[in-house]
Amino acid sequence: MTPEEFRRYGHEVIDWIADYQERLESFPVLSQVAPGDVRAALPPDPPERGEPFEELLSDLDELILPGITHWQHPAFFAYFPANASGPAILGDLLASGLGVQGMLWATSPAATELETHVLDWLATLLDLPARFRSDGPGGGVIQHTASDAALVALLAALHRASGGRTEHEGVAAGRYAVYTSGQTHSSVEKACRIAGLGADALRKVDVDPQTLAARPEHLRALIDADRAAGIVPAFVVASVGATGTGAVDPVREFAAIARAAGAWLHVDAAWAGVAAVAPEFRWLNDGLEGADSYATNPHKWLLTNFDCDAFWVADRTALLGALSILPEFLRNAATESGTVIDYRDWHVPLGRRFRALKLWAVIRWYGAEGLRAHIRQHVALAQEFAAWVAGDDRFELVAPHPLSLVTFRLRAGDDETLGLMHRVNASGELYLTHTQVGGRTALRLAIGSPWTQRRHIEAAWQALSR
Amino acid sequence: MTPEEFRRYGHEVIDWIADYQERLESFPVLSQVAPGDVRAALPPDPPERGEPFEELLSDLDELILPGITHWQHPAFFAYFPANASGPAILGDLLASGLGVQGMLWATSPAATELETHVLDWLATLLDLPARFRSDGPGGGVIQHTASDAALVALLAALHRASGGRTEHEGVAAGRYAVYTSGQTHSSVEKACRIAGLGADALRKVDVDPQTLAARPEHLRALIDADRAAGIVPAFVVASVGATGTGAVDPVREFAAIARAAGAWLHVDAAWAGVAAVAPEFRWLNDGLEGADSYATNPHKWLLTNFDCDAFWVADRTALLGALSILPEFLRNAATESGTVIDYRDWHVPLGRRFRALKLWAVIRWYGAEGLRAHIRQHVALAQEFAAWVAGDDRFELVAPHPLSLVTFRLRAGDDETLGLMHRVNASGELYLTHTQVGGRTALRLAIGSPWTQRRHIEAAWQALSR
Repeated sequence: MTPEEFRRYGHEVIDWIADYQERLESFPVLSQVAPGDVRAALPPDPPERGEPFEELLSDLDELILPGITHWQHPAFFAYFPANASGPAILGDLLASGLGVQGMLWATSPAATELETHVLDWLATLLDLPARFRSDGPGGGVIQHTASDAALVALLAALHRASGGRTEHEGVAAGRYAVYTSGQTHSSVEKACRIAGLGADALRKVDVDPQTLAARPEHLRALIDADRAAGIVPAFVVASVGATGTGAVDPVREFAAIARAAGAWLHVDAAWAGVAAVAPEFRWLNDGLEGADSYATNPHKWLLTNFDCDAFWVADRTALLGALSILPEFLRNAATESGTVIDYRDWHVPLGRRFRALKLWAVIRWYGAEGLRAHIRQHVALAQEFAAWVAGDDRFELVAPHPLSLVTFRLRAGDDETLGLMHRVNASGELYLTHTQVGGRTALRLAIGSPWTQRRHIEAAWQALSR
Repeated sequence: MTPEEFRRYGHEVIDWIADYQERLESFPVLSQVAPGDVRAALPPDPPERGEPFEELLSDLDELILPGITHWQHPAFFAYFPANASGPAILGDLLASGLGVQGMLWATSPAATELETHVLDWLATLLDLPARFRSDGPGGGVIQHTASDAALVALLAALHRASGGRTEHEGVAAGRYAVYTSGQTHSSVEKACRIAGLGADALRKVDVDPQTLAARPEHLRALIDADRAAGIVPAFVVASVGATGTGAVDPVREFAAIARAAGAWLHVDAAWAGVAAVAPEFRWLNDGLEGADSYATNPHKWLLTNFDCDAFWVADRTALLGALSILPEFLRNAATESGTVIDYRDWHVPLGRRFRALKLWAVIRWYGAEGLRAHIRQHVALAQEFAAWVAGDDRFELVAPHPLSLVTFRLRAGDDETLGLMHRVNASGELYLTHTQVGGRTALRLAIGSPWTQRRHIEAAWQALSR
């Protein structure tokens, strides 16, 4: 495709996306297709000759859109949001156009330095402890997802706990233990399995039945029991805004217990952490100065399209120890000078995309002021929705809802609650998902789209309470 | 950013990229900045108020471009290419604009079904064995990179070798062994470390000094020694187009040895594999019908921007066994019906981008015909370059060069060879990197940009032989 063709079709694609943003509400939120429908409409074989770009755009409308669940729809309340915004999409487009690999500082210095810089900016915006900034032994990096962040944090923890021996000897089955709340994301169990510890290494910390936060005294008891059995407590994960209900674990107490046991504390605030752009939500950072690593996802609730997980470590030594390899074909003067960051040693892959561009674009376009307004609007809408739920005798709230996630159910029972969910989802008017709280089914309404306004929340409540 | 603002700035960004493509040759290929230069030019703090988008574009030109090493430049011959093309960039842009998460079939059916479909298309284009297609027990998925592919293949291998016990019990240190050529990418060692086996589990197979291919008889001897010592041979990696020199391991013989030992064979053809779009390069697939998994990167040499690693398994059972977890918040009717693919169970992260769109766009725009022409042009240019090297007494070729990578050195010695590389790289006219072959330094010229023409190869040879 020549630059002139790219210019022409590029304008068409931009217009297609702008139009899509304008007509988002015309689609059912949840795709209505059955398994196999999309594939059945596609030709079985690839084309022998190239096709006009217009045909792709036409097929996008005809064949692909019916199979899309519209995550950017203002009435998408499922899972957690994965919100995009104009500046993020355009920053990402620039990354595609430049097409550089930031695996080493030397392979495009700006890709590395802008990433380090905007993660310091984000640390400033969230008022994170100074230890996570890049001017000391710590620093930030963009990971794909919070699952990847949890995995590399675990690898760093194992490196530190073993004095570096795991890199050579591997992890002996049964030697190390990992601790997290029963409310925590499945990513921690997946990380344990990937890292060779197995799911048996994972200890689930009991939660308080009211707050759903993990109980520090149970964490301490689990660690004590392991130490007594000769097992090394290597890794503790505290959730700030757990996936099911938004529960916030007591990070400060977890930090003290982890430190005393020599374990690494990772704080996973994938969804909730970015709310700290607004000072009234900085309680989310309480105790973070005792954490070894921290992750939050601008690709969830900070207007940045997937993927963009911001991950910081207080001391990068163990992370580099766990992941550095320098084969001959990557040797270069800058790396050997020791004055640069080579981000390939901070994550699983070697190659890496210039993802800092989109975060830079988001922060510059919205400014601190715009980011605060974005968070505050969603929290205000969620509070209003929660008040409606609380005011209706047929419903009950089942967890604290200080942010933009509201968890609730029908008092009538689990079947009724699930039935209600299936009915509203099938209507196409809104989309929400469920979880289990205290052994009972609850619905989750998570607000996150930049297009969501008060009228969408009102309509959601009308559909649910109808 | 409103849809109208997005439309306006989107057109500006498209024009910026089209202009960038037109002026690529005006830039030095290798960035000339020193460590810290880029950051020093950026404001220390994020903006309090939002800024006009024009300022971002202006800073992109002034502050970022000097720190860019231009991977899309027609005289970029370093590492392996990471080529982008217009349709790929626009397909990726559509993915950003739609902003869907394909973690489950249910979260956007088209994202899953198009991915399965285009990986079948790609299997057809490359003439891969039928066992990798999705209509049997196998199938394909897009991974971030070949490093991720090697990691998940290793996890599947450990699952199979342990009868599923590793998921619970973890990997006992010293129980499993992994085998690969000394020429193989560092990704295999990194995967061993991540998976908890440690680098000690990795056996390096000797290579033939002429072809640089791994020697099957040495693989067999290593495996026999491990089995005699009670160690389980779990995972064998054959490289087709190794990073340093493009060496091709004997996959057919590796497959027979791995099968006899009960080990999983993964074939890593990250760079070279896509050349099989042209029938005359289908020898690259020889023996693949005996492999358990296969990876090649459209983001290297098939016109698709990063990231897009195509990964296939012959039987997905072990992969799903290694990576499946179904927490309550992800339960849904489609998953429970067993009739759909949920790609979250095929890789490390949970969330995933709609990356099939860009591969779909590339295949449709170029067609099989256009993809073959793309590969053939680069191979022809490399053969011409190799002939010039061979015809100059000061130089020597150091490895076979059947594709688009030529490895060569100055007969004068390693210092002279490295000195030459530093001189030409510093000139900004071209960029190439080095490796070690048989204990001596060699230069690598890898052709891969869609903008590269004969005159760029001529100019490179003139600069090198001057």
